[in-house]
Amino acid sequence: MNSMKWLTEDEQATWRAFLHATTLLEDHLDRQLQRDAAMPHMYYALLSTLSETPGRRMRMTELAECTKITRSRLSHAVARLERNGWLRRENCPSDRRGQVAVLTDAGYEEVVRTAPGHVAAVRAALFDRLTPEQTRRLGEISRIIAEGLHQPEGADLPWLR
Amino acid sequence: MNSMKWLTEDEQATWRAFLHATTLLEDHLDRQLQRDAAMPHMYYALLSTLSETPGRRMRMTELAECTKITRSRLSHAVARLERNGWLRRENCPSDRRGQVAVLTDAGYEEVVRTAPGHVAAVRAALFDRLTPEQTRRLGEISRIIAEGLHQPEGADLPWLR
Repeated sequence: MNSMKWLTEDEQATWRAFLHATTLLEDHLDRQLQRDAAMPHMYYALLSTLSETPGRRMRMTELAECTKITRSRLSHAVARLERNGWLRRENCPSDRRGQVAVLTDAGYEEVVRTAPGHVAAVRAALFDRLTPEQTRRLGEISRIIAEGLHQPEGADLPWLR
Repeated sequence: MNSMKWLTEDEQATWRAFLHATTLLEDHLDRQLQRDAAMPHMYYALLSTLSETPGRRMRMTELAECTKITRSRLSHAVARLERNGWLRRENCPSDRRGQVAVLTDAGYEEVVRTAPGHVAAVRAALFDRLTPEQTRRLGEISRIIAEGLHQPEGADLPWLR
């Protein structure tokens, strides 16, 4: 059974290469971050996102949307990061049901300590190997894919779950 | 703290778009397969890979390499798929320590049943949105990334762990 029989040969080849690249890259970044900071890539993405916002804080719902993950994955990650002392949750003053994730000073220091190794890993895996032209094209193609996945009517988007 | 300060603006934009695209796509495919076949994308990839091999069987070590996952993730997945009756493990006649994963008839039927919906989801998310030129470029770029992650000396590759 060739389950890819409804894809053209070019599409099949691209799909396999894309799955290999994304699986290996995610494994590579997870390994690097687990080794250097004892956390998976997704946790780092949360801390790093907060570190770039004014006041180093964000509503949980926005943080989920920004990182494209479900609310339940976010809650789980935030609880873990809170136990590490890198985050804390505060109630949102303008919305009684809303909560805000706040990066602590220790969390900020952790991002500062971890960022160089992470950026070096991203650079070595991707940008050192791609021409500026390929980098722009990968961005263009990624935006098309991401926008497409935002579109469906009544969209079943991760951060709305 | 802008953790991406060692990337150029084009690289930053590409990296963010790529993370959004891959996170949304993986969520989308996992949702579709969980809904239609009660399994995550990675489990489907294992069944589908086996369905395309002669005899619908493969050594565990090769199956891990082919799908770019660690041996421990593979063992865990295979144990689950075995409980569902879709796979069975056999000892490898030529290597006493090796094991072979064999797709059962029920597993094959499950791939046949599930493949159309999965391929439609891949097509809708990717190939219906990309021009043939973009499809070829994405394949080219993905191969560069995947090859780069195979190269390091004493490579810490998932399927060797």
